[in-house]
Amino acid sequence: MSSNKRSSKSTATRKAVVAATPAPVKRRMAVPAPLKKKRSNGKLYAAILAGGIGSRFWPLSRETTPKQLLKVVGDESLLKSTIKRLNPLIPADRVIIVTNARQAEIIRLHLSYEDAKALSPGYVIEPTGKNTAAAIALAAFDLYRKDPDAVMAVLPADHVIEDGRPFRTALKAALQAARDGHLVTFGIVPDRPETGYGYIKASARAFRKIDTFGVRTVEKFVEKPDIKRARQYLKLGGYYWNSGIFIWKASRILEEIKNYLPETFDSLEKCIEPESLAAAYKGLRDISIDHGILEKARDVVVIPANFPWSDMGSWSSFGEILKPDNDGNIVRGRVVDIGSKNSVIFGSDRAVATIGLKDMIIVDTPDATLVCPKERAQEVKEVVNILKKKGFIEHQEHRTVQRPWGTYTVLENGEGYKIKKIRVEPGKRLSLQMHHHRSEHWVVISGVARVQRGEEIVDIALNQSTYIPRGVRHRLENAGTTALEIIEVQNGEYVEEEDIVRFEDDFQRK
Amino acid sequence: MSSNKRSSKSTATRKAVVAATPAPVKRRMAVPAPLKKKRSNGKLYAAILAGGIGSRFWPLSRETTPKQLLKVVGDESLLKSTIKRLNPLIPADRVIIVTNARQAEIIRLHLSYEDAKALSPGYVIEPTGKNTAAAIALAAFDLYRKDPDAVMAVLPADHVIEDGRPFRTALKAALQAARDGHLVTFGIVPDRPETGYGYIKASARAFRKIDTFGVRTVEKFVEKPDIKRARQYLKLGGYYWNSGIFIWKASRILEEIKNYLPETFDSLEKCIEPESLAAAYKGLRDISIDHGILEKARDVVVIPANFPWSDMGSWSSFGEILKPDNDGNIVRGRVVDIGSKNSVIFGSDRAVATIGLKDMIIVDTPDATLVCPKERAQEVKEVVNILKKKGFIEHQEHRTVQRPWGTYTVLENGEGYKIKKIRVEPGKRLSLQMHHHRSEHWVVISGVARVQRGEEIVDIALNQSTYIPRGVRHRLENAGTTALEIIEVQNGEYVEEEDIVRFEDDFQRK
Repeated sequence: MSSNKRSSKSTATRKAVVAATPAPVKRRMAVPAPLKKKRSNGKLYAAILAGGIGSRFWPLSRETTPKQLLKVVGDESLLKSTIKRLNPLIPADRVIIVTNARQAEIIRLHLSYEDAKALSPGYVIEPTGKNTAAAIALAAFDLYRKDPDAVMAVLPADHVIEDGRPFRTALKAALQAARDGHLVTFGIVPDRPETGYGYIKASARAFRKIDTFGVRTVEKFVEKPDIKRARQYLKLGGYYWNSGIFIWKASRILEEIKNYLPETFDSLEKCIEPESLAAAYKGLRDISIDHGILEKARDVVVIPANFPWSDMGSWSSFGEILKPDNDGNIVRGRVVDIGSKNSVIFGSDRAVATIGLKDMIIVDTPDATLVCPKERAQEVKEVVNILKKKGFIEHQEHRTVQRPWGTYTVLENGEGYKIKKIRVEPGKRLSLQMHHHRSEHWVVISGVARVQRGEEIVDIALNQSTYIPRGVRHRLENAGTTALEIIEVQNGEYVEEEDIVRFEDDFQRK
Repeated sequence: MSSNKRSSKSTATRKAVVAATPAPVKRRMAVPAPLKKKRSNGKLYAAILAGGIGSRFWPLSRETTPKQLLKVVGDESLLKSTIKRLNPLIPADRVIIVTNARQAEIIRLHLSYEDAKALSPGYVIEPTGKNTAAAIALAAFDLYRKDPDAVMAVLPADHVIEDGRPFRTALKAALQAARDGHLVTFGIVPDRPETGYGYIKASARAFRKIDTFGVRTVEKFVEKPDIKRARQYLKLGGYYWNSGIFIWKASRILEEIKNYLPETFDSLEKCIEPESLAAAYKGLRDISIDHGILEKARDVVVIPANFPWSDMGSWSSFGEILKPDNDGNIVRGRVVDIGSKNSVIFGSDRAVATIGLKDMIIVDTPDATLVCPKERAQEVKEVVNILKKKGFIEHQEHRTVQRPWGTYTVLENGEGYKIKKIRVEPGKRLSLQMHHHRSEHWVVISGVARVQRGEEIVDIALNQSTYIPRGVRHRLENAGTTALEIIEVQNGEYVEEEDIVRFEDDFQRK
């Protein structure tokens, strides 16, 4: 494989101090400058890591609705909150989302719905997921090429930080430390003996103070402890939760990547084109930034911070974020409960009845239900794997699916027919399309539909209907100012989404 | 109240031996003859008590789908099994169902679907539920009037008796004892220290033997015991589960009712007309036959029997009937489970995922889900009360509703619209009807619909549609030989079932 050849070639120069090397691609390679201790004034960028599905949040999360797009806390998705929280310090044009192509499309669509103008970050597309070291390396190259002085904040897309102000205050202090060449990690001061997080053991004393924050040397990274150790850490002090949020100069982290993951460095340094990137990615090590770099690199520091933070690792972490009622329950939806305690009961429009639960998690969505004890919430990931293996559609999509023009909801999927409710936002239209295997009846239940059917164009309003025979080009448009909703009855021997031929599309889909 | 007056009048004659009294109604009153010790050869009838909802089986049971109509064991409803089990001994024309008017309609419809010819029992309609003493008294009067020598088997509609043969063998023995004037109860020989049933304490010795069955005197009826006592009963022997199945001559039980519930006797004796019955019922005592009669009456005997029996009192009794898997679980539907034990997991077409449950009950239906520990399965009844109070439709109806002509399923119920899938059986048709507040679009998804719309009649086939404007008389008929299925989109400011004006109906509905 070509990427392996490149890697082994570069291994020979591993010990060399970072230097510009000629690259066999069109654009001249940008490579980190050697570390200078002198202070820089590099601008702050954000690289938001958003490649995951967060399958521990099934059945709310699905392959096409990853955890970071869920609105489980407040009215905004976790990703939108992450971007908005940065905004006073890092405007969206200095934010990049690191993710795969499919998720990028979903995220772009999501953000366009949420707030069309303000939230237009850039995207760095990974060909495949290769853990955080690769993702951060790719983002660092991207930022370094744009701005060699770039300081980058690395943030997970799906963490909960409820108050943005103390977070930004800490970020400013971290920026200052990062500009001076430190690799800065945020350590959250623990308020309980938590066994769900990794810890950072810091030096006893801060070697420097910025604003009200002490900057300490990292002594070691500690894996998730058992409860006994977690209690010890809390008692001893000097142990902080590893937040997974890092701040450093792009050039500095690239320098360390060159030192400790030289193949990753070399592979990514050389490829700019998406095609070569895909090949290069195949050979990359699947390793986290903590293990791959931070445990070995020099000058890794921690800034202990107090902002309220949760990584929302699973359904059981809800108690940290949403205020439970007097019985310790967190309840949503049309739920009837008798005497449950310390449970998470997330319903929707369906009726959910619970009796005498203790430390349980119930999550009910229109097409799927999860029941599990809190202490086994991690295994929801495993459930999703089983659903996938069994070919259950419920691991992939919700009944309601977002599209650039609106949404559709599958009301029933039967043998030879499918019933959908389709909602088109004002001014939007579906592609001009045709189906080989199905005909469609449309009945308007709200708004006005402009329908192109073959050569004719007609407007149909509430309580009117039309029929699209198999093989006829057609297009559905909401030319009005209120939402258009129709019921679509598909008839045909094959009624899956794949049976679509697009002739024209406002959203450039094929 | 007139019924009270009658009651107090009759109290004066309470001590008198049963005698014919003139009644102020059209037909001459039939009244039990005085007990004769001599043997009769009265025919055996069955009175099946089917007035309950069985709300402990929510969400499978609903007000319109009572427990006795559920097919939780095998392919037949509990009621149908009850009738079929009797059949070799008691043909359906000697079976009466004791229930209220609404349930009678539902049961009649259910049985007509299940087996139109063979299962046409009679009905005795209670104006309201007043516990078993009143229901049995009413049934006894009904049978006694038809046949003064009638022997009646009283059976709950919703018990599970998996093998009919040993049951009928026991029933034959009981018939013989009943013909001789005994009030016979069946006591099930316990095989475990069950706390969910009442017990019958029998005399140490059988005073008589019929076939292989010993007939014993009942010493006392015992309420559901705690586990300690239940263990004692099992060890001691002579304690049997009270099956709630009784066999006696109609005249004999009426004699005892006259003795111990004289107001009930007098009230029911005098009323033949449904109108007077409704008034009489208001004043009846709400008491069980056990408490009201059997604990006091003379010559109450028990026949211990071994047939496999369960009263299916709640979801937790499923383990007695359905064979659990190696982990002790009883699982149905599209369920993914990791490591659960001794749990009942009843799913449907929706995906249900469970992890690490112990002794739990999960029942998932298209519109409602129940989660509760086995030991609290009794409280499901309370859940249903809360649902009712809160106005949740899920206590009342399933998403799919049975009609004399077929079924309909509500796919979505929105503001100003409702989407239904309607299935019409071959040869059936809905009423000729009209709606004041809604129009309807129909799209055929299988079969052929004959549609009357105003004056015209047209046939529409798969993939064709029609429109019924508000206020237009219409009728939907399946004139074909295969099932007809259509999707109906209702539009209107009011889209509830009540908006229907019927002009003609094959099923005499108004």
